Amino acid sequence: MGNNESKGLTLTEKIIKNHIIDGEMIKGTEIGLRIDQTLTQDATGTMAYLQFEAMGIDRVKTERSLAYIDHNTLQSGFENADDHRYIGSVAKKHGIYFSRPGNGICHQVHLERFGKPGKTLIGSDSHTPTGGGIGMLAMGAGGLDVAVAMGGGAYYITMPKVVKVNLTGKLNDWVSAKDVILKVLQIMSVKGGVGKVIEYCGEGVKSLSVPERATITNMGAELGATTSIFPSDETTLAFLKAQDREEDFVALSADPDAVYDEEINIDLSELVPMAACPHSPDNVKTVKEIGAIKIDQVCIGSCTNSSLQDMLKVAHILKGKTVHPDVSLSIAPGSKQVFNMLADCGALSILIGAGARILESACGPCIGMGQSPNSKGISLRTFNRNFLGRSGTKDGQIYLVSPETAAISALTGVFTDPRLAGDMPPYVMPEKFLINDNMVVPPASTEEAPNVEVLRGPNIKPFPVNVPLAEDIKAEVSLKVGDNITTDHIMPAGAKILPLRSNIPAISEYCFTVCDETFPTRAKELGKSIIVGGANYGQGSSREHAALAPLYLGVKAIICKSFARIHRQNLINNGILPLCFVDEADYDKIDRDDVLELPGIRNAIENGTEITVKNITKGTEYKVTCELSERGKGMMLAGGLLNYTKHNK
Amino acid sequence: MGNNESKGLTLTEKIIKNHIIDGEMIKGTEIGLRIDQTLTQDATGTMAYLQFEAMGIDRVKTERSLAYIDHNTLQSGFENADDHRYIGSVAKKHGIYFSRPGNGICHQVHLERFGKPGKTLIGSDSHTPTGGGIGMLAMGAGGLDVAVAMGGGAYYITMPKVVKVNLTGKLNDWVSAKDVILKVLQIMSVKGGVGKVIEYCGEGVKSLSVPERATITNMGAELGATTSIFPSDETTLAFLKAQDREEDFVALSADPDAVYDEEINIDLSELVPMAACPHSPDNVKTVKEIGAIKIDQVCIGSCTNSSLQDMLKVAHILKGKTVHPDVSLSIAPGSKQVFNMLADCGALSILIGAGARILESACGPCIGMGQSPNSKGISLRTFNRNFLGRSGTKDGQIYLVSPETAAISALTGVFTDPRLAGDMPPYVMPEKFLINDNMVVPPASTEEAPNVEVLRGPNIKPFPVNVPLAEDIKAEVSLKVGDNITTDHIMPAGAKILPLRSNIPAISEYCFTVCDETFPTRAKELGKSIIVGGANYGQGSSREHAALAPLYLGVKAIICKSFARIHRQNLINNGILPLCFVDEADYDKIDRDDVLELPGIRNAIENGTEITVKNITKGTEYKVTCELSERGKGMMLAGGLLNYTKHNK
Repeated sequence: MGNNESKGLTLTEKIIKNHIIDGEMIKGTEIGLRIDQTLTQDATGTMAYLQFEAMGIDRVKTERSLAYIDHNTLQSGFENADDHRYIGSVAKKHGIYFSRPGNGICHQVHLERFGKPGKTLIGSDSHTPTGGGIGMLAMGAGGLDVAVAMGGGAYYITMPKVVKVNLTGKLNDWVSAKDVILKVLQIMSVKGGVGKVIEYCGEGVKSLSVPERATITNMGAELGATTSIFPSDETTLAFLKAQDREEDFVALSADPDAVYDEEINIDLSELVPMAACPHSPDNVKTVKEIGAIKIDQVCIGSCTNSSLQDMLKVAHILKGKTVHPDVSLSIAPGSKQVFNMLADCGALSILIGAGARILESACGPCIGMGQSPNSKGISLRTFNRNFLGRSGTKDGQIYLVSPETAAISALTGVFTDPRLAGDMPPYVMPEKFLINDNMVVPPASTEEAPNVEVLRGPNIKPFPVNVPLAEDIKAEVSLKVGDNITTDHIMPAGAKILPLRSNIPAISEYCFTVCDETFPTRAKELGKSIIVGGANYGQGSSREHAALAPLYLGVKAIICKSFARIHRQNLINNGILPLCFVDEADYDKIDRDDVLELPGIRNAIENGTEITVKNITKGTEYKVTCELSERGKGMMLAGGLLNYTKHNK
Repeated sequence: MGNNESKGLTLTEKIIKNHIIDGEMIKGTEIGLRIDQTLTQDATGTMAYLQFEAMGIDRVKTERSLAYIDHNTLQSGFENADDHRYIGSVAKKHGIYFSRPGNGICHQVHLERFGKPGKTLIGSDSHTPTGGGIGMLAMGAGGLDVAVAMGGGAYYITMPKVVKVNLTGKLNDWVSAKDVILKVLQIMSVKGGVGKVIEYCGEGVKSLSVPERATITNMGAELGATTSIFPSDETTLAFLKAQDREEDFVALSADPDAVYDEEINIDLSELVPMAACPHSPDNVKTVKEIGAIKIDQVCIGSCTNSSLQDMLKVAHILKGKTVHPDVSLSIAPGSKQVFNMLADCGALSILIGAGARILESACGPCIGMGQSPNSKGISLRTFNRNFLGRSGTKDGQIYLVSPETAAISALTGVFTDPRLAGDMPPYVMPEKFLINDNMVVPPASTEEAPNVEVLRGPNIKPFPVNVPLAEDIKAEVSLKVGDNITTDHIMPAGAKILPLRSNIPAISEYCFTVCDETFPTRAKELGKSIIVGGANYGQGSSREHAALAPLYLGVKAIICKSFARIHRQNLINNGILPLCFVDEADYDKIDRDDVLELPGIRNAIENGTEITVKNITKGTEYKVTCELSERGKGMMLAGGLLNYTKHNK
């Protein structure tokens, strides 16, 4: 350990200490963690499993890996069902448990049935921190990172700072976990959590159930945090007992003398119903401040607020009433367990009777899969993100609220502070959950696995694998772009392009077409090429396709003024050189179609020596840099993380 | 009455006799019927209500008109929710009851809550004959026909022949109503019902419940029949009593000495489980003949098989079992009543527990709205159509089966004759249905109606209204096409174009683009033009957009060798001249861009005199005909049915 051997540890540090297999626990440095569990969903899963297959490993080396189907469940063409079949078959072959479509949202199901306090979990979904509600160190990651972890490789993060959120008091009636995380977002902003783990402590923790804690850690993703975590305590034990999983319990909390990097105090008893206003999760106001504006739609569900507890609260609010005639209310229970228990206890009958539109247990409208609001529609959603356009319309006004605020407003037809509705209707949580894992298909045995056929639809294409870095590179500049290029420029998303995510050759046809429609054809014709960019190249999402498509199109290097962090890592993961001008003015001295040469590039990367770029066309030269950790060098030389992992197993 | 005053009447003739307001009951001649009830769904409803608005009538003149939302319920963009709001508001303003999204499939809800024996019903959906199960004369019609009927106008049909289907015996266990209609389809084919009403009689009728009868009349649409009908008897009374609607009952049946045009005998006790094989509803084999082929998907629901009885049967088959791991089973209850009762009696819990994917109560996968199978996927569906491509994929293999066959096969993973599953699990139908019409919004009162604002989204554009026929027409040929042009050539459908159906200007951009991408631009530039076609022009569906889009683009006349019947009527309804070459060889003497002149065309139509087409470009002349009834003439001169109806009110 680095700085403070004698001091107590935060809960985060304790779990990291138990899992660190590379590097040291020095904040800001790269550390490698052993990963106990992985999860994927179907929108990112196909690529993760194609990558896992490319690694040539027979069986996952994790304690438990799960493949969930929850994103592309509308199935408007053959692609989605093909992806489900592919994931189901590849899971069966390689030792992965397969959660069938209809079984629910990955994070909700994982919390109920598989999450374990003190374990590490990475998932190819940004809301994987939901597992922090049960005391896991649970992090969102790229598909390739998940593939590597399934293969037994470490997951690398920057040793995070730890923020203590000290909870005191107790939530009043009509105020709930969603209001807690909305308050934290108001305090910290959507950038406030970068490089940090948010650790919840204090007396107030006791009053929060595991699903409530999970709502808070889930939406910690919106802080930009590495993850969020709650201690594992009596409440955790009760939850695990109710799930018939008492044996998975361990008590876990920070040491009393743990040292935190920041501290935030929240008195739960002072919180009121809140809402994140359009178009950012940190644009938070109180419901009272917003006032009684007329609403068009209410959507209840998503990995943030779809637990049995949330649904029971909603049912008791709607009991015997009718959804306001001008409002469409949709409800998607978070898991088959939730759905089944709602049916058994009569709550589902109440919801149907009140006029709720019951949707399949899946992500649904939270990811823009249906239930788009009307033009300029005002939609109250219990979800986690309200980015412009995410609802499937350009002018939808999306507010993120608690289930209580959502349900009450669905009845009144206007934005309504639920505290105006009088006494909160009582509801009773069951002592035992209904246990029926029949929609989780176990993998084939080691003996049977070789006979399992992986079912590939015509849209599922092999994943492109890079080759080791060449001694020298000589290639044309196929594209020159300006500053602040986002991953949406590089690899656009949307309803037209999303079904192609298992098909790099097809999706590559859209690469950079926002900037230059001729790019994919030109790059393919050149065979190999180099892209020149400005500052902050690759900002935005973590999508790997922004590296995979250029890789497929033969891009060998990006030379620019500066890179966004995650995209730079994705380029390294895929063996594409991320080079920065030493003198930014050189950017102006290169044009498209110039032939560039990087003589002795392999040697320069290997030895960390100066890299020279010769412009053959113009007869000039530029200095560029490529800062890499030892591991980064290894990946670069091997032609990406996949090759590097194979060679180092 | 025409031919047989002294003879007894069929049930069909009795209802027609009570509703005829124009023409005489002579088979093959045009008759006008007073319409008691209308229904619309949302995919055709927006256009029907735009047409109704264009008629300038304040309040519907029917006994009961309903606007259902059941088709476009996925809502992948703003268009669907906008359409729902438009329909809801226009319904409120004009005296129409509005069935909110989530309340269920129009035909199922209408049967449960609104259908009445002996009444006439037209609906802008081809499966409107479902109402025949309760003894209504219920017919599918174009949106404009429904608009006219709402305005108090007659609905015109050709006085149909009546086919007697004499049912004897009783269905064996595991054989159900779906197998009856599949048998009829096997006997009559998809063209066998054209110009006919299928009337079910005989001892066997007694053993069939109203929902079972409705399954049979529903899928009579696939015979091409005008409609199908069952008598109203003790079973009907029991159904209406259970729906708290005893007062709606009247006993109705054919006279014992009624004269039928055809007779078919079916012994119910001899029927076995059947399936319609890809890709036609009349490609019927026994399930045994098909054999135990591996299946990928099962979908249960649709207006054909989504009653409480169907769902209870399925629940009892699935009880305590799990859907085969290689099969995706989706279930969409037909109405909120069905859904709610399933929840109350525990059946929904069974379905969820077995791993069924529960979908919103709506048409869903039957109309290709989601749940598309995997590539080359074999899908068993309790639906009514298995046309190539309808499932949303080009290579899906869709089989139409009973709920029993669907449920058993979902468990085994292969096509399975349900009789192999042993004794049929018993189920009990309730004495009383759960009555809660809270999702049917009544219209505003006559006093309030003027203040109701009709909510139009940006995709909802005014409906194009034609002008009275000109004295002379002179226009260029904007398009020349060959034989057998379908309505899918004229106005393509699909996920891209469907959301535009409320927007004639936008959807017109796709008019004829299958044949010639430049057509819409050219036609608009010309301002007015003429299309030349071959034989059987306009075959296929009844979609009005195949006339509305050409109207919008300025098409004044179609000159061709022959027309398909429904499309010809749609052209007349919209005031576009349907002209036939006297000498078909003249087809070869016209080219695109030729300037044609129809001198004195208004006079010729008015007086039924010879029509001459002058080819100004080529200096030649052709004779063409335009056979019209007096009413047809009136419509043609007025510029379509809307104008005609306005002038004749």
